[in-house]
Amino acid sequence: MFGGFFRLAKENYREPVLVGSVDGIGTKIKLACQLRQYRGLGVDIVHHCLNDIMVGGAQPLFFLDYLAFGKLDSAVVLDLIAGMSSACRDAGCALIGGETAEMPDIYHPGEFDLAGTIVGVVEKEKILDGRRIARGDVLVGIASNGLHTNGYSLARKIISARHLRLDHFQHELNETFGEALLQPHRSYQKQIRLATELAELHGISHITGGGIEGNTNRLLRNGLQLQIDWQAWEWPPLFRLLQKYGQIEEAEMRHVFNLGIGLIFVIAPPAVDELRRRLLEIGEPSWVIGEIK
Amino acid sequence: MFGGFFRLAKENYREPVLVGSVDGIGTKIKLACQLRQYRGLGVDIVHHCLNDIMVGGAQPLFFLDYLAFGKLDSAVVLDLIAGMSSACRDAGCALIGGETAEMPDIYHPGEFDLAGTIVGVVEKEKILDGRRIARGDVLVGIASNGLHTNGYSLARKIISARHLRLDHFQHELNETFGEALLQPHRSYQKQIRLATELAELHGISHITGGGIEGNTNRLLRNGLQLQIDWQAWEWPPLFRLLQKYGQIEEAEMRHVFNLGIGLIFVIAPPAVDELRRRLLEIGEPSWVIGEIK
Repeated sequence: MFGGFFRLAKENYREPVLVGSVDGIGTKIKLACQLRQYRGLGVDIVHHCLNDIMVGGAQPLFFLDYLAFGKLDSAVVLDLIAGMSSACRDAGCALIGGETAEMPDIYHPGEFDLAGTIVGVVEKEKILDGRRIARGDVLVGIASNGLHTNGYSLARKIISARHLRLDHFQHELNETFGEALLQPHRSYQKQIRLATELAELHGISHITGGGIEGNTNRLLRNGLQLQIDWQAWEWPPLFRLLQKYGQIEEAEMRHVFNLGIGLIFVIAPPAVDELRRRLLEIGEPSWVIGEIK
Repeated sequence: MFGGFFRLAKENYREPVLVGSVDGIGTKIKLACQLRQYRGLGVDIVHHCLNDIMVGGAQPLFFLDYLAFGKLDSAVVLDLIAGMSSACRDAGCALIGGETAEMPDIYHPGEFDLAGTIVGVVEKEKILDGRRIARGDVLVGIASNGLHTNGYSLARKIISARHLRLDHFQHELNETFGEALLQPHRSYQKQIRLATELAELHGISHITGGGIEGNTNRLLRNGLQLQIDWQAWEWPPLFRLLQKYGQIEEAEMRHVFNLGIGLIFVIAPPAVDELRRRLLEIGEPSWVIGEIK
């Protein structure tokens, strides 16, 4: 059998609900292949999956990866697995299995795809699906550390159209484009755990493809609307540079990129200060970036 | 959040162990793309995953898919999902989520990759990992219905080297090469359920990449060896034709293909006749194809 086992401590749950999520890391892979830096992609896929289930209230149990190469490169596999193992270990998530496939005519030599599936568990009554979100709730955003794993097709198009060098130091970034673009997706595990202790927390949005509005709208029932205060925080220089070089419209920037906000807590007004104070205690500044209308 | 929920009826289990498995379907995808027949691939991926966990004693709970395209083709997506949904429904397995990615520079136009993750559950004491397999145990094989999802790189090489037409009727096959090669991977769910009722069943091997020996050897502890009686069954015509056209050595055939045996039960001698009788009752002939030395 090709599978991994994970003992579920059923005594720890009243009404356990399993949560599964699968994801890829898009064309960030192409950039990593150009720069021959793979380890971070392993971190990316785990953190992307982890954040996706934790915003639903779940705790991670285990993770499995799918790796497909044109021609297997064991050094690359080792780097990717090192990244995944380390991120899984930090998250308290078991890496219980994976599949590494060699598919000559589907992937170009030197290229590959990486996908991951995470399974977690949540008490039924603690599922966080946005149903308690109400008019007047406040959006508290915390920082991303780059593009995470979304918007790479556009970013790569800009870089190639403007012949930007990935290995040139950029003063505005204080690093090279390559370094900035390969920053691994952050894990928000600590921040989410801390926020979910507050009864006033009504929803969490992980900003991935679709941007701030696309991802947060999914939490809202009929009749409720987002009102984002786009002036409430400053875009990190990487997004400004991409916009400038690519001459990208504001609307497209908002749809494709996280623009510096990686996660949004939707919380009732009386608890906003408490949430922000607790976040600051673990070194996490935050911005009030809008509200529910 | 991007995930699916699955309520675990914990009252039904004493010591539930979750089992996860991830798989792809290899370059069978290339053939399906040539012939523009996609639905069967959806069945393939579900059955491959399903068999992989059921041979460990597990029952399926839920499934998630990962689909990556160069350019999204919604007709193809619908066909694949139709195949997966139908196979999941038949298996009593919930299709709780998936990711469909568009990655322009990684996949060629018109091509894609498909992977699946299945999660199941098994009572700890019912895990079937081969530890009870003993000298003298008998191997009872049941039929595959084609290549399942393994050996397609070799099969495609043979077809292309010999300029074989996928759409020509082959008398030996009583169908075209294309039809024979695209037969969806069988589900052995019923056969496995029935066999696992017998206390004398010590292990089950799902014949995928690595062939009969590669997959069955994994069940054996140190000191035990397989003795396959290669004359005990007749290879289906598809394998004979591939061998003939490709002039493939016997050893390679055995390593790459299932050669007509899709699943092997490893069972103590006193229960062999009972197992075979029960299988026949559900219309499943079987062969005694070897023993444990």
